[in-house]
Amino acid sequence: MCELLGMSANVPTDIVFSFTGLVERGGVTGPHTDGWGITFYDGKGCRSFRDPLPSSQSEIAKLIKNYPIKSKAVISHIRQANRGGVSLENTHPFSRELWGYNWTYAHNGQLSDYEQSITSKRFVPIGQTDSELAFCWLLDKLAQRFETEPTCPDQLFEYLNQQCDYLRQFGVFNMLLSNGEYVFAYCTNNLCWITRRAPFGKAKLIDTDVIIDFQKETTPFDVVTVIATKPLTNDEAWHKMGVGGMAMFRYGELARFAEPKPGDC
Amino acid sequence: MCELLGMSANVPTDIVFSFTGLVERGGVTGPHTDGWGITFYDGKGCRSFRDPLPSSQSEIAKLIKNYPIKSKAVISHIRQANRGGVSLENTHPFSRELWGYNWTYAHNGQLSDYEQSITSKRFVPIGQTDSELAFCWLLDKLAQRFETEPTCPDQLFEYLNQQCDYLRQFGVFNMLLSNGEYVFAYCTNNLCWITRRAPFGKAKLIDTDVIIDFQKETTPFDVVTVIATKPLTNDEAWHKMGVGGMAMFRYGELARFAEPKPGDC
Repeated sequence: MCELLGMSANVPTDIVFSFTGLVERGGVTGPHTDGWGITFYDGKGCRSFRDPLPSSQSEIAKLIKNYPIKSKAVISHIRQANRGGVSLENTHPFSRELWGYNWTYAHNGQLSDYEQSITSKRFVPIGQTDSELAFCWLLDKLAQRFETEPTCPDQLFEYLNQQCDYLRQFGVFNMLLSNGEYVFAYCTNNLCWITRRAPFGKAKLIDTDVIIDFQKETTPFDVVTVIATKPLTNDEAWHKMGVGGMAMFRYGELARFAEPKPGDC
Repeated sequence: MCELLGMSANVPTDIVFSFTGLVERGGVTGPHTDGWGITFYDGKGCRSFRDPLPSSQSEIAKLIKNYPIKSKAVISHIRQANRGGVSLENTHPFSRELWGYNWTYAHNGQLSDYEQSITSKRFVPIGQTDSELAFCWLLDKLAQRFETEPTCPDQLFEYLNQQCDYLRQFGVFNMLLSNGEYVFAYCTNNLCWITRRAPFGKAKLIDTDVIIDFQKETTPFDVVTVIATKPLTNDEAWHKMGVGGMAMFRYGELARFAEPKPGDC
């Protein structure tokens, strides 16, 4: 499968600490060697770095680890291919413009028997993954339902939650989605998050021997949420999401949450 | 204004030599300090690096100069802002998906009095530049004219040429556009190209003291076209495009050309 990493923060924050843990799983502590990518928002603009090489060997990943790019919303992914070959066009995160916003998305899981049920017209996949097709389908649905961006974000949350429940019928669908302001997280089986705020403490990465003292890196007003497939630190309390649970973060804070639903993952 | 750089090649080729000359114009030999960007295609996939910092000072530009990314189609731009502030969302190249292809575009020039005449609906600008609006308008027109990718590229060339002629009514419109296979270049006043093929020689950059011996970097079968606002070398014969001229390159070769049209730039 793959691993996801997301961040939502109330001040531009660098994700070097978490990213350093994630890239180890791309060939060192984990088997996710089929590419990696990361998108950083800066206002309505965003920049994506993607590479079909393993993250642990990538020159571009080294740049990201050494050159802190600060952002309020980040989506990242390391890939272990199932559907779609190892290539740049199959490397997450995927992005499209809708309503004058960049939408960025990454998926962990695998869908089956979806060919008749998940199709898209306005947004067309460039690669061959089930993940990108599900993203195009989601945006098609959003564009059909809302001609312009809904003024009430709750409408967006509820509609997205319904569509993700639909996609979950076809298999494992853990995903992160952002437009730069909101970060949405939908869980089928593996997704968790942590919100860090004052008083900040220290944390140690599970995947490599790095310790950070967040107090030295932050102000007392910073609120930073990190979302990941599996906890990246072992000395903090991560919230594990349940089957069919969905969360919407805005500038670090949990803005909406949908409870897990009955049923298997 | 800004400066454009494009490449079309029949084998994956690195653009480090030309890019090294271009970035000097972003703060050293030229005044284009309001951001820069570059997009490299790899099959149908592409990766873009964009930065609102001057290219001559950018850490990400340093990576591009030191880490050769090979590609058959490249679009690059350095910016001197006129319409739209200095920000990531106003930094070229811009990209959108149409017909399941990434389309990448960069513009040099400025448009005026276009607000009533250049509007777009399906593709909506994320930033505030006239350049991105013109790109969205172009793709809107393409999507309206062709439901799927035209099977004959001549149709695409002719239709794009007409639309670029229309945009040129509103000011200076030099642009580069690519879907990874074709690189289109449209000229209002400043655009030129060079096609390098065997027997390869040496060349010296105008903007910095770098000489390359292409024979050492190539095979006898390589064909590489570089397109730029102004010649990047002073010991080679660049073709200067005329007012309203348009060229379509495919894998290094000039595939179609429209002659300059009567009228001022």
